[in-house]
Amino acid sequence: MHLSAPYDPNNIFAKILRGEMPCLKVYEDAVCLAFLDIFPQAPGHTLVIPKHAATNILTLPTEAIGPYMASVQKVAHAVQKAFQAEGLTIFQFNGAAGGQTVFHLHVHIIPRMDGVSLKGHGQAGKADEDSLKTHQAAIMAAF
Amino acid sequence: MHLSAPYDPNNIFAKILRGEMPCLKVYEDAVCLAFLDIFPQAPGHTLVIPKHAATNILTLPTEAIGPYMASVQKVAHAVQKAFQAEGLTIFQFNGAAGGQTVFHLHVHIIPRMDGVSLKGHGQAGKADEDSLKTHQAAIMAAF
Repeated sequence: MHLSAPYDPNNIFAKILRGEMPCLKVYEDAVCLAFLDIFPQAPGHTLVIPKHAATNILTLPTEAIGPYMASVQKVAHAVQKAFQAEGLTIFQFNGAAGGQTVFHLHVHIIPRMDGVSLKGHGQAGKADEDSLKTHQAAIMAAF
Repeated sequence: MHLSAPYDPNNIFAKILRGEMPCLKVYEDAVCLAFLDIFPQAPGHTLVIPKHAATNILTLPTEAIGPYMASVQKVAHAVQKAFQAEGLTIFQFNGAAGGQTVFHLHVHIIPRMDGVSLKGHGQAGKADEDSLKTHQAAIMAAF
């Protein structure tokens, strides 16, 4: 998918936003939805997507980026607190060449601990449902 | 360096902002400074830092994040255009455990091409000065 490709309204995050697919939601406000990555690179790996139908960072209207990133920061605080994370690694991939696999703009927030390497995306497979539900509750309680 | 560590005004990016250290500047406005990473993970690897003295994403005042990220987006457009990049990989590391090595908030913008892997940070050593100056000129011309 090229950076200038048109937005596909049937991408999986668009379906999540429309309620046509489930997600493990941790936060929602007027401009964003945040939910757990079910293929976490570390426990608590969270995705924050804008409600605006933007393919990537280049195509989000400039006036929408401030409110979206303020929400990303809010989610980052909660993720850090929930896991008492010593670090936060934030990834944002644009275009297939840039590492993007779902073509709705999203930010990855990954809690980090000293000495613990990041898993490759999907490397450990899908996380088990009980862990995900525990992590979801922990993050929701941290707002 | 922990996420809640106080800001060190002698970090290298603070020195660059004060003009006490050189940088290969590609863009500057009221809220940010953008310059080339001299240990690029790909040609055109650019850093965007806020002028605000924030250690990481958690400590930037929320009202400052919108203008900063709007500038990051502007730089991302220029970097993409200058290199005709097929993708853009954006990293933002917080805390030593999160991969941060300079403790002034910064966003990495890395142009990507299909099939070209990212180098490890510093893996290829310092880029040669002529290449860096060519890349600097290309990005500046793309605004």
